[in-house]
Amino acid sequence: MEPRVSTPSVSYSITVRLELPSRPSVVSTLTTVVEQEDGLVTAVDVSGSETDRLQVDLTIATGGEADAARIVDALRAIDGVTIGRVSDRVFLAHLGGKLTIESRVPIRHRDDLSLVYTPGVARVSRQVADHPEDARRLTIKRNTIAVVSDGSAVLGLGNIGPLGALPVMEGKAALFKRFAEIDAFPLCLDTQDVEEIIATVKNVAPVFAGINLEDISAPRCFEVERRLRAELDIPVFHDDQHGTGIVATAALLNALTVVGKDIGEVRVVLSGAGAAGSAVLRMMLAAGVKHATVVDVEGIIYDGRPGMHESLRWIAERTNARGLTGTLADAIVGADVFVGVSAPNILREEDVQAMAPNAIVFALANPTPEIDPAIAARHAAVVASGRSDFANQINNVLAFPGVFRGLLDARSNTVNDEMLLAAARALAAVVTPEELNPTYVIPSVFHPEVHETVAEAVRRAAEQAR
Amino acid sequence: MEPRVSTPSVSYSITVRLELPSRPSVVSTLTTVVEQEDGLVTAVDVSGSETDRLQVDLTIATGGEADAARIVDALRAIDGVTIGRVSDRVFLAHLGGKLTIESRVPIRHRDDLSLVYTPGVARVSRQVADHPEDARRLTIKRNTIAVVSDGSAVLGLGNIGPLGALPVMEGKAALFKRFAEIDAFPLCLDTQDVEEIIATVKNVAPVFAGINLEDISAPRCFEVERRLRAELDIPVFHDDQHGTGIVATAALLNALTVVGKDIGEVRVVLSGAGAAGSAVLRMMLAAGVKHATVVDVEGIIYDGRPGMHESLRWIAERTNARGLTGTLADAIVGADVFVGVSAPNILREEDVQAMAPNAIVFALANPTPEIDPAIAARHAAVVASGRSDFANQINNVLAFPGVFRGLLDARSNTVNDEMLLAAARALAAVVTPEELNPTYVIPSVFHPEVHETVAEAVRRAAEQAR
Repeated sequence: MEPRVSTPSVSYSITVRLELPSRPSVVSTLTTVVEQEDGLVTAVDVSGSETDRLQVDLTIATGGEADAARIVDALRAIDGVTIGRVSDRVFLAHLGGKLTIESRVPIRHRDDLSLVYTPGVARVSRQVADHPEDARRLTIKRNTIAVVSDGSAVLGLGNIGPLGALPVMEGKAALFKRFAEIDAFPLCLDTQDVEEIIATVKNVAPVFAGINLEDISAPRCFEVERRLRAELDIPVFHDDQHGTGIVATAALLNALTVVGKDIGEVRVVLSGAGAAGSAVLRMMLAAGVKHATVVDVEGIIYDGRPGMHESLRWIAERTNARGLTGTLADAIVGADVFVGVSAPNILREEDVQAMAPNAIVFALANPTPEIDPAIAARHAAVVASGRSDFANQINNVLAFPGVFRGLLDARSNTVNDEMLLAAARALAAVVTPEELNPTYVIPSVFHPEVHETVAEAVRRAAEQAR
Repeated sequence: MEPRVSTPSVSYSITVRLELPSRPSVVSTLTTVVEQEDGLVTAVDVSGSETDRLQVDLTIATGGEADAARIVDALRAIDGVTIGRVSDRVFLAHLGGKLTIESRVPIRHRDDLSLVYTPGVARVSRQVADHPEDARRLTIKRNTIAVVSDGSAVLGLGNIGPLGALPVMEGKAALFKRFAEIDAFPLCLDTQDVEEIIATVKNVAPVFAGINLEDISAPRCFEVERRLRAELDIPVFHDDQHGTGIVATAALLNALTVVGKDIGEVRVVLSGAGAAGSAVLRMMLAAGVKHATVVDVEGIIYDGRPGMHESLRWIAERTNARGLTGTLADAIVGADVFVGVSAPNILREEDVQAMAPNAIVFALANPTPEIDPAIAARHAAVVASGRSDFANQINNVLAFPGVFRGLLDARSNTVNDEMLLAAARALAAVVTPEELNPTYVIPSVFHPEVHETVAEAVRRAAEQAR
């Protein structure tokens, strides 16, 4: 089943070609019918005209596939209208794939061939073989990273496998190029075995200057990341963890400034202890949070909770000093900050009401947040979510392009918490004191300075780490 | 040590910036000095000028690095000349790597993001996960292949490892784009273990519509290719074998027409039983050769030769029906065709003299052929080599772009001998009867019809194979 989205969205947008009698007010008839069926006309193009007939391309944002079908039916029912091709803008945008690999060198004649291929290339190959560090100067390793997924936890779609993951990883690669001029290639793996993933990434690593892990389910992702970081001489970044950690921490820093609270004093309740949750916790602790409590599906995490998975032990050791037990509703009472990276609609309005004054609520579950941001905003001072149709969108695209740009510019062999924290602080600082307010604690991904600012901070941190 | 090349070559080309007094005949002094030291001035650019001084950029094709150094020294010795930066054109062409990965979709604002990334991409991912065949329509799998090497047998450089191999594989990818509009990505593997290579290629295969194996040493390459062909549902092509096989066979077909001999009648002697040799044999047998004899480092291969490696058994079974033993010099007597894919200077002038009248000699060892083509041409009717400075260059670039274009256009799951033979016949037919002569049995890689003609033939053969 298609998830129903509440408002007409470009991601469920269709273009309908239709023919109709050229009578007065014909276009307003069309838009009225579309609006009656909860659609929104975003473009009208008259693509052909005869004496008494018009051909019109109508682009319509809809609330989902069911809405789209209903809208087309309603248009078809208009007297004299004939429906032609109905195309889906999202699918049109993906036709043929979203990436292309281009040659940076001209190959016009035999001399060019001799320069960039045999026999000329042999000298370059020997140079790189003898001086491996020259690979960063004379090959694509200079600026190329891999976006690696096993397709086990893709967006909200779950375990859809490597081919299903490919459109997402291509999109990610396109964003790396768009925002940070990085050449990123998607590798979607036909295995979900931890050892095979590790071996495969190690085997292809020579070509790359960095590895971006993506949408690999927890807890396997922890082991994959830990081992690759230990065994490779290039930085390994797991965006679901570190990207979310950076952006959520940046937003927290600014939100605390808005409400005038100190990071070392506030009580933070974190819902979710998976890949994102543990990374958000780790980064927020590094940023100065002293009082955190983590809640997972089985309730509050505390030292000694029976049957607790090994991966939660470090959380129990660093959080919940008061030894609280119970549910999210118990943990939230009096808390200053809620950060959710967990599941839809698990935070109730009365939970937000029970928080301390000037509460901060980050409801980051995708596509449906832990609480409707509009409801949370009735009681909290600052609200953020993963949604683009509300203020304060926590979007990983704010972090990963700049982080890798900085790592590549520094030719870094690694990535560590200091670099990630530098990214978070730089991202927060993009919002100036004059701009900062409850509905603007984090900049837009199209803000002209975001990616360069993050890159510069990471580059400096990486150069200091040498 | 740099190999010394006999003639000034663009692949050992340098650009020297120098300052000199602006007196009459100053440029002719420079070119004379360069020529005295066996260099060739290919460009003179006056890049700056004052009243009595000139700044000149002199581009010089040289015979190798030692020649280049000697030329620079000779220029420096000219009265009044100051030498500035000396740059190497080959290295300049490789700076930063030879490939770039670009986004095919615009990402200008939030709506674009929603179309090509979340949330829009989720529907495309689900579609591809549910209908894997749609990956060829909605992802880069449509037009993307991997160029895979373990760096164990790179050009004539031997086992220089994955980083050393990368400049060659990037060049190959650039050629795929230039000649066949294919997106090719180089994967240089940090393993030379057959099982690990196979596992790694299988694990990354979902993204690709074909695998081009490259510069993997024999006999490991046979096992890698055989297993990947059996276990993957995309075509696997080993260019060192099949590319060479196609082009040599195409040249043979045309050379036989030139000398008026029948392929079923001629005696062919093949020197070399490695990756290229066995593939050339296989394809020539498929093309109709009935009398072949193969010679390797231990002499003529015959049924029952002691200590013969398993991989040679099929050769012994299909060749040398007369049970000849001995050396290349024994095998060559009275032969119509010599094809060498072996080692430098192993065919003597008297061997060519001992061949049948109107002999055909393909001396394909790189960079130094089995016999100097100029010497072979004293006695043979048709001579071909791998060198660009003689007629009839047997160059794999004639085959691999078109072969993969055809396979991709047919959405082929496999590649077989019929498709390879179709490529060879199509390549031969690019040379028209009017054009065909002893110095033109194979077209240039820049011939406008080569790649499309090969692609079309392979596509048709692949569609028939369904």
